[in-house]
Amino acid sequence: MPSSGSVVYLDNAATSHPKPEAVYRAADGALRAGGNPGRGGHRVALAAGRRVLAAREAVAALFGVKDAARVLFTSSATDSLNLALKGLLHPGDHCITTVAEHNALRRPLVALALRGVEVTWLPVSPEGIVDPGGVRAALRPNTRLIALAHGSNVTGALQPVAELGEIARRAGVFLLVDAAQTAGSHPIDVEAMGIHLLAAPGHKGLLGPQGTGILYVAPDVPLRPVREGGTGSMATLAEQPDVFPEGFESGTLNVPGIAGVGAGADFLLSVGVEAVHARVGALTAALVEGLRRLPGVTVHGPADPARRCGVVSLSVDGLDPGALEEQLDSAFGVVGRAGLHCAPGAHEVLGTLPLGGTMRLSPGYFNTEEDIEAAVKAVAAVAALARR
Amino acid sequence: MPSSGSVVYLDNAATSHPKPEAVYRAADGALRAGGNPGRGGHRVALAAGRRVLAAREAVAALFGVKDAARVLFTSSATDSLNLALKGLLHPGDHCITTVAEHNALRRPLVALALRGVEVTWLPVSPEGIVDPGGVRAALRPNTRLIALAHGSNVTGALQPVAELGEIARRAGVFLLVDAAQTAGSHPIDVEAMGIHLLAAPGHKGLLGPQGTGILYVAPDVPLRPVREGGTGSMATLAEQPDVFPEGFESGTLNVPGIAGVGAGADFLLSVGVEAVHARVGALTAALVEGLRRLPGVTVHGPADPARRCGVVSLSVDGLDPGALEEQLDSAFGVVGRAGLHCAPGAHEVLGTLPLGGTMRLSPGYFNTEEDIEAAVKAVAAVAALARR
Repeated sequence: MPSSGSVVYLDNAATSHPKPEAVYRAADGALRAGGNPGRGGHRVALAAGRRVLAAREAVAALFGVKDAARVLFTSSATDSLNLALKGLLHPGDHCITTVAEHNALRRPLVALALRGVEVTWLPVSPEGIVDPGGVRAALRPNTRLIALAHGSNVTGALQPVAELGEIARRAGVFLLVDAAQTAGSHPIDVEAMGIHLLAAPGHKGLLGPQGTGILYVAPDVPLRPVREGGTGSMATLAEQPDVFPEGFESGTLNVPGIAGVGAGADFLLSVGVEAVHARVGALTAALVEGLRRLPGVTVHGPADPARRCGVVSLSVDGLDPGALEEQLDSAFGVVGRAGLHCAPGAHEVLGTLPLGGTMRLSPGYFNTEEDIEAAVKAVAAVAALARR
Repeated sequence: MPSSGSVVYLDNAATSHPKPEAVYRAADGALRAGGNPGRGGHRVALAAGRRVLAAREAVAALFGVKDAARVLFTSSATDSLNLALKGLLHPGDHCITTVAEHNALRRPLVALALRGVEVTWLPVSPEGIVDPGGVRAALRPNTRLIALAHGSNVTGALQPVAELGEIARRAGVFLLVDAAQTAGSHPIDVEAMGIHLLAAPGHKGLLGPQGTGILYVAPDVPLRPVREGGTGSMATLAEQPDVFPEGFESGTLNVPGIAGVGAGADFLLSVGVEAVHARVGALTAALVEGLRRLPGVTVHGPADPARRCGVVSLSVDGLDPGALEEQLDSAFGVVGRAGLHCAPGAHEVLGTLPLGGTMRLSPGYFNTEEDIEAAVKAVAAVAALARR
């Protein structure tokens, strides 16, 4: 599949584009077929239910989840993280996280801290990586959760998740991983990596439509629902039932979106996540290498490509990131995102907060080597102009 | 537009089907165009932002909302109701509602009651209608909210919302209306009816895709966000900003779904909600009239067609509602929903709780007179068999 027409789309960290053709067709097919899953036993409702079940099973297969009922569909990764944090943490509980998190993890924790949850905000290295020893040292008798992003949407840094999973296992605490930048593009096996809660959007690496998210919940996690409503069964109960998955999915499901996520997961399963990982990794490494050579250009985040996801933040001397974004778009059709990317703590680490953040370029599976060359040439031209 | 092929679809109260062709095209067009609104200033993100803004303005126009920024997009009516109730009610506040509410309103209130919110559950008449005098009598010094469904998804009863709006205004309390069964098919003007908070799904009467909901919030309502996360701006604030709309819409928006809701709202604006109301009302009245004549068939809810939305609950002597649903579907292709419809209190009023609820048939704008005739004939045949 070619990249998107005359635009070189390098904003896959915000939302992946394009999607596999099968995703467009699955979403449109589900929308045209109609039906509300779990609401009624007639043919239209049942067919909608089968679409959702197939998608749940495809997502489960992608992450090594044995019981697909433990994969919840939500409206976004933000929705998933709110459910995971608020459904698990009570006043007096302690949670360990980092200073570099996206606001989708940071702000719910700030809100919980106001309600009596203790939060430790660990530092990260200048490259954006947390020290597992620091996590171990931060454990307290009341620690209930370690929560952090697998890959940063600013620095691109990958955290040592499997090592943290082992720490969590030994300490008897839970591990919540925000896989917004890695789900679909990095191999993730929840059991092998010791992940108890895995949150991800459906519309980034999973290649599905927006309005979708997933939350995997391990069998031993005593999660409580946080959004009450109809559950399609057990209607007479006044209190929200905590059965998986329907107790956590109140309200009509986004069937077209979920069908699209299922098609995206099927696509990833057929290509193989390892192959996707290799391709995105190669494109990202080429982008980093090309940009590093340019005078006046700083590439942030880990130097080691193995410690990075498909997110490349850069700064150009003498140029505001917003102006860089605008020039890359208008003059070269190279599309990426400038700013703080909803993660101010990561910019404090990089020292880019006073500069208004960074310019971010984020390759996806459907980008080409030519896209990367075009982006590097465009940045070179803008940086050269800025130096004059 | 014809009804759905060989199926006579009469489950529009669960989700409307079919949608206008423009809705399918808008959703597919937005999905294929990509882009994350409010995340980046490049051409793809900005185009997505314009789609969302156009949809917000169309929905605002439909309900007489002057400032479109007060129309929030959510993932469902359930999501809207959770936000309205939890964002407004604090421990010690008093809320007035009815015993007949859908679990989307009932269960969040039950959860809030456990946290110290006082709730009065008012009775409704045998037809399902609340007495405004009872609401007035239930007011207390700490009453903050009157909350109820405009039209019942079980009895079809319409509540006297404008009268309740006047009671709320005089008492200085807020009125929350769950318009799940009326938004799009009944004229609703938030100012004329004194509605402070209006919750609705995008995929029922608004004719949009699933995974969408709206919440209108009047300018004087001090709502607080309940789902924290990225807001695309003000990223450095640790606490969730309460600006409209983005402080209440954290996480990536469902752009394809919202574009579809916009197309649905545009369709309704061009046909005219009055015309839709007249058409759905005529189909519903014909259905009620036809069913009432059948021996062994009981039609529940208001006798006066003017007091009813497009929801018709019925019982057939000697037949479980689930068996009725199954026979109507398999033998006649008439598709409706049997059961409690997530609103057990309404069945207590009707006396249908021990029977396993009711069979519900719910016409929509795209149904035809022939659909209604086919449904009446099918029920007649099944009821005749059951009497033997």
